[in-house]
Amino acid sequence: MSSRTNISCLQEAKRVAIFGGTHGNEMSGIVLANMWIQNATEIERKGLVCKPFITNPRAVEKCTRYIDTDLNRAFTPENLSASELEALPYEVQRAKEINQMFGPKGGSDAYDVIFDLHNTTSNMGSTLILESSTDLFNLQMVHYIKKAMAPHTCSVLLNEHPQLKYSTTRSVAKHPVGLEVGPQPQGVLRSNVFESMRTILKHALDFIELFNNGVEFPPCTVNVFRVQERMDYPRDTNGNITAMVHPHLQDCDWEPLNRGDPMFLTFDGRTILYEGANTVYPTFINEAAYYEKQQAFVTTCREILAANAIRKAFK
Amino acid sequence: MSSRTNISCLQEAKRVAIFGGTHGNEMSGIVLANMWIQNATEIERKGLVCKPFITNPRAVEKCTRYIDTDLNRAFTPENLSASELEALPYEVQRAKEINQMFGPKGGSDAYDVIFDLHNTTSNMGSTLILESSTDLFNLQMVHYIKKAMAPHTCSVLLNEHPQLKYSTTRSVAKHPVGLEVGPQPQGVLRSNVFESMRTILKHALDFIELFNNGVEFPPCTVNVFRVQERMDYPRDTNGNITAMVHPHLQDCDWEPLNRGDPMFLTFDGRTILYEGANTVYPTFINEAAYYEKQQAFVTTCREILAANAIRKAFK
Ligand SMILES: [Zn+2]
Ligand SMILES: [Zn+2]
Repeated sequence: MSSRTNISCLQEAKRVAIFGGTHGNEMSGIVLANMWIQNATEIERKGLVCKPFITNPRAVEKCTRYIDTDLNRAFTPENLSASELEALPYEVQRAKEINQMFGPKGGSDAYDVIFDLHNTTSNMGSTLILESSTDLFNLQMVHYIKKAMAPHTCSVLLNEHPQLKYSTTRSVAKHPVGLEVGPQPQGVLRSNVFESMRTILKHALDFIELFNNGVEFPPCTVNVFRVQERMDYPRDTNGNITAMVHPHLQDCDWEPLNRGDPMFLTFDGRTILYEGANTVYPTFINEAAYYEKQQAFVTTCREILAANAIRKAFK
Repeated sequence: MSSRTNISCLQEAKRVAIFGGTHGNEMSGIVLANMWIQNATEIERKGLVCKPFITNPRAVEKCTRYIDTDLNRAFTPENLSASELEALPYEVQRAKEINQMFGPKGGSDAYDVIFDLHNTTSNMGSTLILESSTDLFNLQMVHYIKKAMAPHTCSVLLNEHPQLKYSTTRSVAKHPVGLEVGPQPQGVLRSNVFESMRTILKHALDFIELFNNGVEFPPCTVNVFRVQERMDYPRDTNGNITAMVHPHLQDCDWEPLNRGDPMFLTFDGRTILYEGANTVYPTFINEAAYYEKQQAFVTTCREILAANAIRKAFK
């Protein structure tokens, strides 16, 4: 078999969207999207439609995560097919509008790539979030971005978990990519976080331009962290937390957590240890928005994904 | 003149309150106050009434700074005397209730000391906020706390500025003390910030107990940072920010800012320098809640306050 047969020929990526404000208090993406709506020079690439867009303008206006319900969980088949006549929550209305503009989700007319820009209060650094381990275009793009960012780290979080995967805003695109950069408090814009996000997007658009120009990308491997399990805070019978993330775990996103390592510190000073059998790599540690989602952090395992060579299909 | 004549004899401090949740998304004070409402052992001191209290329960419930208006600006004479009949904003109603329970502000029946617990997204560390340079009781208490916290730093912010001083929740007490500990994102509880706040309160209550027991505190001096000026972000004609806190200034609360030092970084990469004639000490740098208050940071100057010796007045 010649190496030639191992090249996957993929559709050109002609329409790209950059979403800011899916969560209205995550400032880097909001400011970047608004900046590019005013002046798109920086994101223009030959032969590419690149649309910056504020997905949840009312939440942005109020500088809150959402108005009625989390937009980034709202792109379910039920919501997207809900009748216009019902009195829908604001974010469900928005989901339907976004699906019409950039989708339809799963359809051939959907946008090729959507970058959805998020910030986290966790010490995750620059993180790309993928929803599929078999999307060769995204794996090659992520590989390209990681190389271009070196020596700075860019982690890849893979959420394919049957229960924990959720219906994201970006999921209307053929190739959905989440950008999650932190730590940054809600409502705050930090220059270092802003510039990291901007640089990642530059490399991502460069990759798409090269791909569209017919450049062939050789086989590669990508180190990812695969979502495994949600860990909640210890709580009392009223649902109130009774412990905090332990200082030894706080800010240690992506670092190994072994059986017997400190995990929580109760208000009365007891340490709660991690009891899992296997070493895990926690992330989203102490994210502000996840208290209400009963999640203190999420555990991941390390995995190496292999991707075929790709190039643009010539019609 | 004998040294004896330089001792100020002050009223005993028999009623103390600890306020959490004046801002409903500043978690350390909320969790501490709720913890002590359930079990007060830790804050009990002989001969002292010490009342933990959630000041803005509806904002706490929603994990937002406020419902209608900032409670920590609401204790104005106009608000406190507003007629019950009007349809008042929620926080104005609360201000009136709090003033009845713990005040009346300026009256002889008011609580002796109120500690109001706040968090900030700024890198301010542990900070005590005073509203008067002539409150000997507070100056001596702050001196005691600073010494007890060493080698850890505890800064003192003095806000006596004729325009920038505001009508705080704690201002109903005879001796109002703000605790501001950071950095901590809104909606997040960090164990290090939580423990710092708890330790400061322990020392504060110890001081009050000693004072009530008749201990004499010798003359002392206190290094404070006096509020000078509010600095806003650069903005466009629509009021949107056009620059970020410069990376050289970000997280550098309490460090000198000299004429010619970088202050802001515009989105198109220009550095804006500090042009003031005198060296200042910025604080509340990039605090999330102050974007809407048109404040990127506040400048302070260093000052040394002298305090007389004090002891309890014997009736
Ligand atoms: Zn988000
Ligand atoms: Zn506050």
